[in-house]
Amino acid sequence: MSGKLRVTIWNEYRHEANEANTRIRELYPEGIHRTIAGSLEGSCEVRTATLDEPEHGLGQAVLNETDVLIWWGHVAHHEVADDIVNRVHERVLNGMGLIVLHSGHYSKIFKKLMGTSCSLRYRAVGEKERLWVVSPGHPIAEGIEDYFELQQEEMYGEFFDVPQPDEVVFVSWFEGGEVFRSGCCYNRGQGKLFYFRPGHETYPTYHNDNVQRVLNNAVRWAAPPNRPAPKYGKRLPALEPIKPRG
Amino acid sequence: MSGKLRVTIWNEYRHEANEANTRIRELYPEGIHRTIAGSLEGSCEVRTATLDEPEHGLGQAVLNETDVLIWWGHVAHHEVADDIVNRVHERVLNGMGLIVLHSGHYSKIFKKLMGTSCSLRYRAVGEKERLWVVSPGHPIAEGIEDYFELQQEEMYGEFFDVPQPDEVVFVSWFEGGEVFRSGCCYNRGQGKLFYFRPGHETYPTYHNDNVQRVLNNAVRWAAPPNRPAPKYGKRLPALEPIKPRG
Amino acid sequence: MSGKLRVTIWNEYRHEANEANTRIRELYPEGIHRTIAGSLEGSCEVRTATLDEPEHGLGQAVLNETDVLIWWGHVAHHEVADDIVNRVHERVLNGMGLIVLHSGHYSKIFKKLMGTSCSLRYRAVGEKERLWVVSPGHPIAEGIEDYFELQQEEMYGEFFDVPQPDEVVFVSWFEGGEVFRSGCCYNRGQGKLFYFRPGHETYPTYHNDNVQRVLNNAVRWAAPPNRPAPKYGKRLPALEPIKPRG
Amino acid sequence: MSGKLRVTIWNEYRHEANEANTRIRELYPEGIHRTIAGSLEGSCEVRTATLDEPEHGLGQAVLNETDVLIWWGHVAHHEVADDIVNRVHERVLNGMGLIVLHSGHYSKIFKKLMGTSCSLRYRAVGEKERLWVVSPGHPIAEGIEDYFELQQEEMYGEFFDVPQPDEVVFVSWFEGGEVFRSGCCYNRGQGKLFYFRPGHETYPTYHNDNVQRVLNNAVRWAAPPNRPAPKYGKRLPALEPIKPRG
Repeated sequence: MSGKLRVTIWNEYRHEANEANTRIRELYPEGIHRTIAGSLEGSCEVRTATLDEPEHGLGQAVLNETDVLIWWGHVAHHEVADDIVNRVHERVLNGMGLIVLHSGHYSKIFKKLMGTSCSLRYRAVGEKERLWVVSPGHPIAEGIEDYFELQQEEMYGEFFDVPQPDEVVFVSWFEGGEVFRSGCCYNRGQGKLFYFRPGHETYPTYHNDNVQRVLNNAVRWAAPPNRPAPKYGKRLPALEPIKPRG
Repeated sequence: MSGKLRVTIWNEYRHEANEANTRIRELYPEGIHRTIAGSLEGSCEVRTATLDEPEHGLGQAVLNETDVLIWWGHVAHHEVADDIVNRVHERVLNGMGLIVLHSGHYSKIFKKLMGTSCSLRYRAVGEKERLWVVSPGHPIAEGIEDYFELQQEEMYGEFFDVPQPDEVVFVSWFEGGEVFRSGCCYNRGQGKLFYFRPGHETYPTYHNDNVQRVLNNAVRWAAPPNRPAPKYGKRLPALEPIKPRG
Repeated sequence: MSGKLRVTIWNEYRHEANEANTRIRELYPEGIHRTIAGSLEGSCEVRTATLDEPEHGLGQAVLNETDVLIWWGHVAHHEVADDIVNRVHERVLNGMGLIVLHSGHYSKIFKKLMGTSCSLRYRAVGEKERLWVVSPGHPIAEGIEDYFELQQEEMYGEFFDVPQPDEVVFVSWFEGGEVFRSGCCYNRGQGKLFYFRPGHETYPTYHNDNVQRVLNNAVRWAAPPNRPAPKYGKRLPALEPIKPRG
Repeated sequence: MSGKLRVTIWNEYRHEANEANTRIRELYPEGIHRTIAGSLEGSCEVRTATLDEPEHGLGQAVLNETDVLIWWGHVAHHEVADDIVNRVHERVLNGMGLIVLHSGHYSKIFKKLMGTSCSLRYRAVGEKERLWVVSPGHPIAEGIEDYFELQQEEMYGEFFDVPQPDEVVFVSWFEGGEVFRSGCCYNRGQGKLFYFRPGHETYPTYHNDNVQRVLNNAVRWAAPPNRPAPKYGKRLPALEPIKPRG
């Protein structure tokens, strides 16, 4: 991978665009995508895309030039067009990294890649969350202490109905009594997928230094492999002589 | 689990129903499902279902009374109705075991549960396959020697585009030079899923003692857990007192 | 596996044998091993063994007749003879199940099988522990609700320096703010290994119904496979003709 | 990680040092370690160490300055001093990467980190090996086609008695009929471990471009995380207020 990683940050951008949501607009005046972009622009080539743009801002050309896609959605998952989801899905299988945030657990693209309900327990009362590192050698945990805290977050609790992750990097403790696998790594096709739990729109999560550090680490981890796609899906001749068996 | 396991064997049943396929009809005169059924009836309560039955033989009542579903399909995957696929999917997430055979790797239900293309290399010239046990403590390998051979099989070769299995039980060697992860275990929701590679319709694979032994083992392994579904997908009150944080 | 599973419960048996430990002796008057034995005797053929018996009660004949070994130790890990540890190790690799409890994380046999320090954070102030099921389809979780609580336990916190488990069944929430992977499944050789976190000697943990249920489930899960040992460790002739290459 | 990775290549260096081994000395006139060093020196800061040096060339200072250690051994595993093995072990748990080659599967350090017998089948008749990529998105597979071939190698066959790898990158096909998990990734403590199968001393394996590419990739993958060691192994105060429970 020569040059800077090309990151596209996709945001539903409905909460922040609604004038009634004073608190959310104070936290993310230009949208969650712009706050995340600000934390990545030093090290990556960043662009953003939102639901209400044509093709949701995810035209084929944009995706082809995207190394890692970050996804935040919440109330409008059903408005994302199926053909765009399929386009993203195909790019992931061909090597594009994907980072799915918080309520994106119910997005079409995440459910399609997981194959399960992606359901969980939840509660939004602004309780404390503490994220523990359970895989301290993992690149996504670099620079993170044994744990870090978010003073106010929505709770997500187990059972989280996803396939067993290939690696779990963080497990959360919640003040109200639950736990959650909050940093989950998956391989799908040639693509790498990281689900990162925190990020409710009414809390300043994406301004948090540790959260920004995790996202920076995750982008680097999810970078596409430098190799052509495997030649599968094909009838292929034998590589060795075969004894005819009638 | 009291009493015998209730197994439903689903077969597309098109190759064997076609009078032109003399060789296939010699091997499986009543269909692949009936041959497999014969090998399970001693230890399980078995029924069969086929594509051309109403609801493909998979009415809700049938699925509710099924502990483990076995799936064989090949040329008519696209004819399987999406609502039946969704019904099977939901039952798997709620604990029903699923065993997907051979060309079922391209079935709608398998692709939906995997989230990937499920693509692979292939070649059908009747070459030798040797299946090696790489997880000798696994219940699905019980009674199987270090390896077993099938004198004639279709080749499936890597890369097999599926998520990394939770456990790999068999890896195949092919005469023509390829390898394949031929026995793959997955957990999805509360359900257990086993993909077993061999079983091309033009070869006597389902008459093979080792193959029958593996299927018997797999049915026992995939039996549903004896527990209610998790209470997720719900907003839930805190289990511990929470300090208000404004 | 015909007949009842043969379980041997090994206990260091030093805390309970010491008259000064009034509280412990009230909880476990005949030793922790006898309490656990009481909960298994309905379904298994149980024997016990303790540190101060000849060969720690683990002669070769005893091990040969043991399907699953349960291990509790704490203050005298270093007194366990290395040759006995090697004997247990060899039996595990040949298929004997092993269930390691609580402070057994620092036992010689567990460290030898893990290959890591097996270190963790800890605190014994009798706080509340809540164990969440994160693998609801797993046989070890059968009959367990979404979670269960222990009102008083020692805290063990992450990072727990063990290899990534093949499957994690429980994750604990602790009142004091930590989390822990409390039910960890491993395969080693042909043997299955389950580490179960709770069980400090000053609390009534092994009298808890859920704990007893987990141990019953774990014993069944860890039963040896019904197959001979693989023929590895040998120079072996080719199975196929080889083209000489000079 | 700023600057070049610091790699130490350890070699038993007995076969190549023996004048009777004409063929081996032709292939590796300065030893296997020097051939591997030659392929890494462009991108890494490389040093080598051998069995017969004081402390086997692995003094504490050398290990402290090593990011990734590569290990080749065969006939003299038992001559490696236990305290040096323990020193390497501790460095791995603290983050040093380790790449174990071929017959190193029986080295003390590999067996200690695996916790199993590390046994396998073998045969050295110079047959063809074909390594298939089964994890095409993995950094260690970068630049490698769907497979690559070695015209002459020793055969290693399954069952390979190691813990289930965290990720399998390569599976080998052998002319004589066996298969093998030839590229196995593990996490141990904060360290990353890669086992790479090929490399018998009587064949030109380490001169092969694909093998050199894999080793270059593996060194980058195994680089230590940039973070301090977790504070485990300690009794620690509660992070949250605890309700006294008598």
